[in-house]
Amino acid sequence: MTNNNIKIAILGFGNVGRAFAKLLIEKEKEIFEEFNLNIRVVAISTKSKGCLVNENGIDLTGVLNDLEVLNHFDKNKSDYKDISSMEVAENVDYDILFELTPLKIFSGQPAIDHIAAALKRKKHAVSANKGPIAWAFEYLRDLAGKNKVLFYYETTVMDGTPVFNLVDETLKFCKVTKIIGILNSTTNFILEEIANGKLYDEVIEEGKKRGFVEEDPSMDIEGWDAAAKTAALLNVLMGANITPNDVDRKGIEDITYEQIKEAEKRDNVIKLICYGGIENGKVIAKVQPEEIHKNSLLSNIKGTTSIVSITTDLMGTVSVVEHEPEIEQTAYGVFSDLIRVLSNMQRI
Amino acid sequence: MTNNNIKIAILGFGNVGRAFAKLLIEKEKEIFEEFNLNIRVVAISTKSKGCLVNENGIDLTGVLNDLEVLNHFDKNKSDYKDISSMEVAENVDYDILFELTPLKIFSGQPAIDHIAAALKRKKHAVSANKGPIAWAFEYLRDLAGKNKVLFYYETTVMDGTPVFNLVDETLKFCKVTKIIGILNSTTNFILEEIANGKLYDEVIEEGKKRGFVEEDPSMDIEGWDAAAKTAALLNVLMGANITPNDVDRKGIEDITYEQIKEAEKRDNVIKLICYGGIENGKVIAKVQPEEIHKNSLLSNIKGTTSIVSITTDLMGTVSVVEHEPEIEQTAYGVFSDLIRVLSNMQRI
Repeated sequence: MTNNNIKIAILGFGNVGRAFAKLLIEKEKEIFEEFNLNIRVVAISTKSKGCLVNENGIDLTGVLNDLEVLNHFDKNKSDYKDISSMEVAENVDYDILFELTPLKIFSGQPAIDHIAAALKRKKHAVSANKGPIAWAFEYLRDLAGKNKVLFYYETTVMDGTPVFNLVDETLKFCKVTKIIGILNSTTNFILEEIANGKLYDEVIEEGKKRGFVEEDPSMDIEGWDAAAKTAALLNVLMGANITPNDVDRKGIEDITYEQIKEAEKRDNVIKLICYGGIENGKVIAKVQPEEIHKNSLLSNIKGTTSIVSITTDLMGTVSVVEHEPEIEQTAYGVFSDLIRVLSNMQRI
Repeated sequence: MTNNNIKIAILGFGNVGRAFAKLLIEKEKEIFEEFNLNIRVVAISTKSKGCLVNENGIDLTGVLNDLEVLNHFDKNKSDYKDISSMEVAENVDYDILFELTPLKIFSGQPAIDHIAAALKRKKHAVSANKGPIAWAFEYLRDLAGKNKVLFYYETTVMDGTPVFNLVDETLKFCKVTKIIGILNSTTNFILEEIANGKLYDEVIEEGKKRGFVEEDPSMDIEGWDAAAKTAALLNVLMGANITPNDVDRKGIEDITYEQIKEAEKRDNVIKLICYGGIENGKVIAKVQPEEIHKNSLLSNIKGTTSIVSITTDLMGTVSVVEHEPEIEQTAYGVFSDLIRVLSNMQRI
């Protein structure tokens, strides 16, 4: 940090990164008024659009425009550099690293290494990538602690809806004892559409068109995405120190129209439920399709809406619901982590 | 504050005050470890149990025991004083005032005067009484600002569930544009029981026995309690500067079994809905019974469970649900405001 400038490096610049950049442009003045700080984006690295580095600050408006027009960063500009995300993390002069690269669900890499590189250099880090929190949370948390820097990851479970901040900032002195959630919108959507009488393949195609079913939907359908979110929640909120492999996981691939209709006769709906609790002093993690009674709050979590219910010793159960988020809400989550770094960096 | 002691004065010592006192005893060591501060309760005033003052700290365990045994403070102890809550607010040497006296729903008094007295003396204040927030929020907020002290009131809408803290601490830079809630459990319970075929009077009697219908239930049934909560929410989160009189209010007194059954035919349930929004640049506040579709999240808010849905410019809509709170959850809300004062008092 020099001359009231905070230098940030962004790894990955897909939809979330771009929406975050727009928010930085929009809120530049408000951030300065609040913190007396200017945010300078000094690096943006991508796998397929090129890489930009400028220690005086990249022109974000220009870059967003280039991407619209060229679908690539402008190779003719002096900011354009031929370096990798890891090189940015290790060598560029920044204050906060933003890890927004695509998730590798079975390893969390190379995002874990990117963040570790930043923390080792005593730089703050923000991750919108759930891999590092699901696979290596304790390692990274301890690395941040040792180097006296901040490490935040609000978006990894419910986009910008406060989950980790909720517990950290508003449920102080509470001990989390149980977590229940519906956290995967793809499976939520598929189960609803099958209940409506549509066929699996038909539903998958429609979901792809509407943008919330991945090209390869198996990670969602088999419960891996939900397991990664469950591991992230339990690692952070219950000190579980687990990976997605430790989650007792069952996907929705075997759920049939007939099963859903049978459940309906019992006034139930089938939802893919994430669960964490303590049994015999040990944290138990589960992801599986379950019958939920129509009178329950969880039964009315539809489509892309998600919920997490957090039970604590002092505050009983509090649920938080995110309603039909768009990409702007994920960008807000990244932005809120930036604001949290700016608020807390003087205090550690 | 002297010698690492924080002196607190508690006005009102009903169920919430006693549960708060138990929490102070239970968390004494943790608070010291976190803040290096000892909490000393230097005054407890009540209308019917007497008043205690001891600048070295009242023995809370002893007081709770006396109340169990005598149903009154012990008049033979040296702490026992014959002074009023207002005298405590104005004259006792404390750092934080806790306003826990019973609500006067049509004026917010004398709680407003208690809090104003503390703030004018440059003492921090915490209110679990919604009257001051519904009737005089701007006055008290400005008084706190002018005197550079803190003023918190988390419990006034949803007990210990974060609502004001949620927006303040986890939705920074967001502008609240709309609020919808189910915030009165008495009416929620009555509507459900009438739907089950019970008669009004029968339901009221049962609710009184179960402890969540007041001796005079008219304030709940006519929507005044919901209107006070709506005014509090809109004053704090939307800068509305209104009183409960400004809320377009309709209670549930005219809702019949037949209306509920008609609604059910349309797959709807009737709930008393609190609403705040902006129309033509002006904040609009409403409390009224509304038909809610059974697919909606709000329809499954049953009994003493409550919900508030907050819509913002940057984060879309986030809902927070409190599940079947007990008195301990209200006490936690008061406790969380204490923790917030301890966290922030050095920074203002």
